[in-house]
Amino acid sequence: MPPAPLIADLRSDTVTTPTPQMRAAMAAAAVGDDVYGEDPTVNALQQEVARLTGHEAGLFMPSGTMTNQVAIALHTQRGHEVICAEGSHIYEWELGMMAAFSGVVPRFVHAPLGIPDPEGVRAAVRRSIHQSPSGLISLENTHNKAGGTVIPLEVLAGIRAVADQEGLPLHLDGARVFNAAAALDVPLSDITGQFDTVSVCLSKGLGAPVGSVLVGSKAQMAQAHRYRKMMGGGMRQAGILAAAALVALQDGPALLKEDHRRARQLAEALAGAGFAVNLAAVQTNIIYATLPDAAAHAARWAAAGVHANALGPDSVRFVLHHQVTDEALERAIGVLTGAVVQA
Amino acid sequence: MPPAPLIADLRSDTVTTPTPQMRAAMAAAAVGDDVYGEDPTVNALQQEVARLTGHEAGLFMPSGTMTNQVAIALHTQRGHEVICAEGSHIYEWELGMMAAFSGVVPRFVHAPLGIPDPEGVRAAVRRSIHQSPSGLISLENTHNKAGGTVIPLEVLAGIRAVADQEGLPLHLDGARVFNAAAALDVPLSDITGQFDTVSVCLSKGLGAPVGSVLVGSKAQMAQAHRYRKMMGGGMRQAGILAAAALVALQDGPALLKEDHRRARQLAEALAGAGFAVNLAAVQTNIIYATLPDAAAHAARWAAAGVHANALGPDSVRFVLHHQVTDEALERAIGVLTGAVVQA
Amino acid sequence: MPPAPLIADLRSDTVTTPTPQMRAAMAAAAVGDDVYGEDPTVNALQQEVARLTGHEAGLFMPSGTMTNQVAIALHTQRGHEVICAEGSHIYEWELGMMAAFSGVVPRFVHAPLGIPDPEGVRAAVRRSIHQSPSGLISLENTHNKAGGTVIPLEVLAGIRAVADQEGLPLHLDGARVFNAAAALDVPLSDITGQFDTVSVCLSKGLGAPVGSVLVGSKAQMAQAHRYRKMMGGGMRQAGILAAAALVALQDGPALLKEDHRRARQLAEALAGAGFAVNLAAVQTNIIYATLPDAAAHAARWAAAGVHANALGPDSVRFVLHHQVTDEALERAIGVLTGAVVQA
Amino acid sequence: MPPAPLIADLRSDTVTTPTPQMRAAMAAAAVGDDVYGEDPTVNALQQEVARLTGHEAGLFMPSGTMTNQVAIALHTQRGHEVICAEGSHIYEWELGMMAAFSGVVPRFVHAPLGIPDPEGVRAAVRRSIHQSPSGLISLENTHNKAGGTVIPLEVLAGIRAVADQEGLPLHLDGARVFNAAAALDVPLSDITGQFDTVSVCLSKGLGAPVGSVLVGSKAQMAQAHRYRKMMGGGMRQAGILAAAALVALQDGPALLKEDHRRARQLAEALAGAGFAVNLAAVQTNIIYATLPDAAAHAARWAAAGVHANALGPDSVRFVLHHQVTDEALERAIGVLTGAVVQA
Repeated sequence: MPPAPLIADLRSDTVTTPTPQMRAAMAAAAVGDDVYGEDPTVNALQQEVARLTGHEAGLFMPSGTMTNQVAIALHTQRGHEVICAEGSHIYEWELGMMAAFSGVVPRFVHAPLGIPDPEGVRAAVRRSIHQSPSGLISLENTHNKAGGTVIPLEVLAGIRAVADQEGLPLHLDGARVFNAAAALDVPLSDITGQFDTVSVCLSKGLGAPVGSVLVGSKAQMAQAHRYRKMMGGGMRQAGILAAAALVALQDGPALLKEDHRRARQLAEALAGAGFAVNLAAVQTNIIYATLPDAAAHAARWAAAGVHANALGPDSVRFVLHHQVTDEALERAIGVLTGAVVQA
Repeated sequence: MPPAPLIADLRSDTVTTPTPQMRAAMAAAAVGDDVYGEDPTVNALQQEVARLTGHEAGLFMPSGTMTNQVAIALHTQRGHEVICAEGSHIYEWELGMMAAFSGVVPRFVHAPLGIPDPEGVRAAVRRSIHQSPSGLISLENTHNKAGGTVIPLEVLAGIRAVADQEGLPLHLDGARVFNAAAALDVPLSDITGQFDTVSVCLSKGLGAPVGSVLVGSKAQMAQAHRYRKMMGGGMRQAGILAAAALVALQDGPALLKEDHRRARQLAEALAGAGFAVNLAAVQTNIIYATLPDAAAHAARWAAAGVHANALGPDSVRFVLHHQVTDEALERAIGVLTGAVVQA
Repeated sequence: MPPAPLIADLRSDTVTTPTPQMRAAMAAAAVGDDVYGEDPTVNALQQEVARLTGHEAGLFMPSGTMTNQVAIALHTQRGHEVICAEGSHIYEWELGMMAAFSGVVPRFVHAPLGIPDPEGVRAAVRRSIHQSPSGLISLENTHNKAGGTVIPLEVLAGIRAVADQEGLPLHLDGARVFNAAAALDVPLSDITGQFDTVSVCLSKGLGAPVGSVLVGSKAQMAQAHRYRKMMGGGMRQAGILAAAALVALQDGPALLKEDHRRARQLAEALAGAGFAVNLAAVQTNIIYATLPDAAAHAARWAAAGVHANALGPDSVRFVLHHQVTDEALERAIGVLTGAVVQA
Repeated sequence: MPPAPLIADLRSDTVTTPTPQMRAAMAAAAVGDDVYGEDPTVNALQQEVARLTGHEAGLFMPSGTMTNQVAIALHTQRGHEVICAEGSHIYEWELGMMAAFSGVVPRFVHAPLGIPDPEGVRAAVRRSIHQSPSGLISLENTHNKAGGTVIPLEVLAGIRAVADQEGLPLHLDGARVFNAAAALDVPLSDITGQFDTVSVCLSKGLGAPVGSVLVGSKAQMAQAHRYRKMMGGGMRQAGILAAAALVALQDGPALLKEDHRRARQLAEALAGAGFAVNLAAVQTNIIYATLPDAAAHAARWAAAGVHANALGPDSVRFVLHHQVTDEALERAIGVLTGAVVQA
């Protein structure tokens, strides 16, 4: 029996395909050689993200891993510690690049729901000559592994104060920072303006095919340009990708609240059907459910047209995005909740 | 006075903009999330490059720097030496990434016209416990800094034999290997089949907007996938770029002999006008001329609509590509040779 | 008022000064250039440590940090994870060298009393292409930060089985493995024989002035020789140090049980005087006590002739060693317990 | 037939064994735990080397490789270039540590007789965003691989001026800088005072068993302390070694001119006997001779009691040191020149 037609791909918000508007923009984009800084569309994108985030300058790169890892290199010296929340993407999903390239190790802060306490951050600072000195504090907002959770603005202000008192730079892995702004209903720059550098991803909820932008000061972006080139992120006519990203930046943010509404709907349906879901953690577009034999369930759902990611032996993640409609969600809920009943 | 309209951009073959066919292909490309291996257009491109080069598998990346540096990581351990010709791109223009990521140093072989002698390669092998052991031999064909020069097939066979005798892997920086095949008038795989891994660039003479493919065995590409992810080269709907690259791969190779013919024409015109040009080194699409105050000349030509790269205080590089027509070349020659007369 | 004469230096077992026998041995040592492998005393030491630990070969280095970090380099590739217990010395006190040199990150296993559960180790193994692959399991026995605790032999056997099943190498940071053997009352090789490589420190409880030995197979030690040289650990007439270490190896182990007896005596005296001491963790020669204003207390004790290390704002560590006699301990207890009463 | 008794070990000046005075000093040394900065003999040595070199502070390490590599880490960022003469020890004999730890690559300057021209150094500086930026200029004086050659003071002043103009730090690998001072007949600080940091080796011509000292500013030494610890160079009662080094520092320098005189005598004898020796390069205690089948000759001489190092297929190195007396030299010359006659 062939697999059922796709109902909903809930594995990630990275699976969206470009919209017709994005395809049209790519086909018509004015481009140049961005290695020489001459791609007008890339330049426009960088300026627009800098403006939206309240920073001086931006630099386009092929992935959020690269923007994060370039930022780590910018702020640290060999042997430093990077203070971050448990379960941070820069450690869990960036394959040791912080060590391999920057020569730094993580120092974890306990972070219930992905939200570290300012005093916990302060306690993680190291100064002894017998230990690695702290070089950077890095936050993730929303926090993917904790369930797309949002750092409250007052917690953020507290951590910013700790960073200032300790003389440490503060970086944001903002892969889903537009989701955080939507959830808090504040301008993006209320969040991003608190940081020295921010990595903004365009290919997650916003729906662009490829790319992230790092923002910070002009001097930092000049240095970031060197690290980007070292990692192989210097692309030629990258304006093709930037054109789609500009569309995503214009159209995408408004759609995120819908994703959040649908995530809440799905989470409640799952909880109602007996899934172990921490509803308090469902703050944006991500839902984690705990169930045994996660991979087997995920395979069965996939055969029925609903794709989710089994992350670990008893954990499944569902992610909403703009290419899952209300109707598709209804049908997906049917598959998923039916599946548990039958289990 | 505003700058004159563009006559010819001879700075590099990376400056080409996508053709209408490429733009159409990008707009229509079937895409998926390549981080999950699900982008059909990326997969098709990887298979096509593997087929053309005579290798088992390929992996698409955003730049030739990344494909080269992933290959270096694949083949070496920390502290190894990479044997390469003087002036190799992996050292001169990849910003120390071989050291920063792989922890390896270059060991240079004297290479007149960019072509190392097999016995010179053998003499560069290190085995003493007091020295860094050799980990890799890396060639560049055509050799950019030497003037786009081509390694003769018998020299290649000699170096392959040395690699086998010494038990060392052999990598090709094939940024312009299609030019080498065109110059030698042999199938690409006659060259690329001699190597363990090859980096093939699609955004130079072939004209694609972005991207390179690394080829090698399936096992190597699995490992390369990890290093690509570490460097931030995992892109989402990269099929957009792959679609253009597939067009480039189909249409581009046939145009290279024209580029070579025009480069020869330009070189002879420059030599005739008194430029110091080593005509023996003009074997493909690149010309180096030696002249004092290179940067000042380049600026003056640019103001007249002809762009070239001053590389060093008394060296200028001209690169032909498919977006310089015969007519544009004639006019560019006029500007360039006139300029010398006036100098 | 000048500080009181020294009663006891309990900061670490690294503070011991060479005994007259060691000094005599150093003055008379036959030496050669160890970089050429020609120092007979170094060679004798390496063979003796290999024999005692049940391994094929050994390599002398200036510190335990170097033996551990060379071992990490031996077993891993860039971007790997090193599975280790929370609070491991290789992470806490080796200043990020695992990242800076080997390019690897730690993956922590929860370890009450410093003892990881075999199934916890298994759960820490990573295989997904989206994550850093596990490269090494590293244990520490006794576990310094957990209080000098000893891994039971059956737990060790369980972790060895996990390592075999997962195809991962197993390293021991054996800075105080002689203490573990003394506490378990088993031959050293019952512990050290379970590991692929072991770092054995000679300058802690055994009392040698300088040095550690890494043991493993001959092939591993050949590779370790290269990494030692890279880190600058190739010393010339190192036989001077090895001569003292050979004395330490002969005389030291028998003294450790006395250190353990005295540590227990001190721990019970402290607990009796109201210090917060976890007596279950006092298994060898280390005692941690929790008390507020640790640094202020430590300073006051030091002024009275008793030195201890404040590690963190409310934690003090006391370490027994062969240069603290029963009489000195009695007097030190007087100072320490009196101090609390006065606090 | 057993090998003849040793006449002279001319392989290196590192092969000397400690003198009776050194052994007595080691046996009597006041020591402490240098990781806590409490070893009085280490502290005295560091101050003495700082004083002699005209620098603010010093840090003792187990080898010259470590002092050099710590200095490289001090002055550079990941991806920088280190400008150095061809054949520099930091590249040729330090096993890629500049790459593995600091993530930097060498940029070679042509250096006849090991002496780079100031303008050659200036031409090696890189500033383009397409290239690795220069981070450090490193010299070696005397230059080992060039034959123990001495940089004239006016050349040194010229390179210092270039460093200042380019804003680059200047490091000296002073493994044999006492030989340079002896050859120029100037105070050590006339040379070492020109540099930001200097690595001074105590176990070469000066004859100490183990150790080098890095000198520079106090702030640099604080940072160097961290890098030393990372590399595993933190030793405990290192005063044992420092005691011998202090004797070497007092007695050694006066003996170097004798070594130089004997080296000249040997070089002329070899040249007279038909060896290919560049007498112009014999400026201190090192002689290189070119002859075919170098290893076979070295083996035959060794069997006759004279040890020399075959470095490469047709190159032999002879090094004089204080444990080769005039009488031993006479006999060694007999063996060596006789050997050629028989060859």
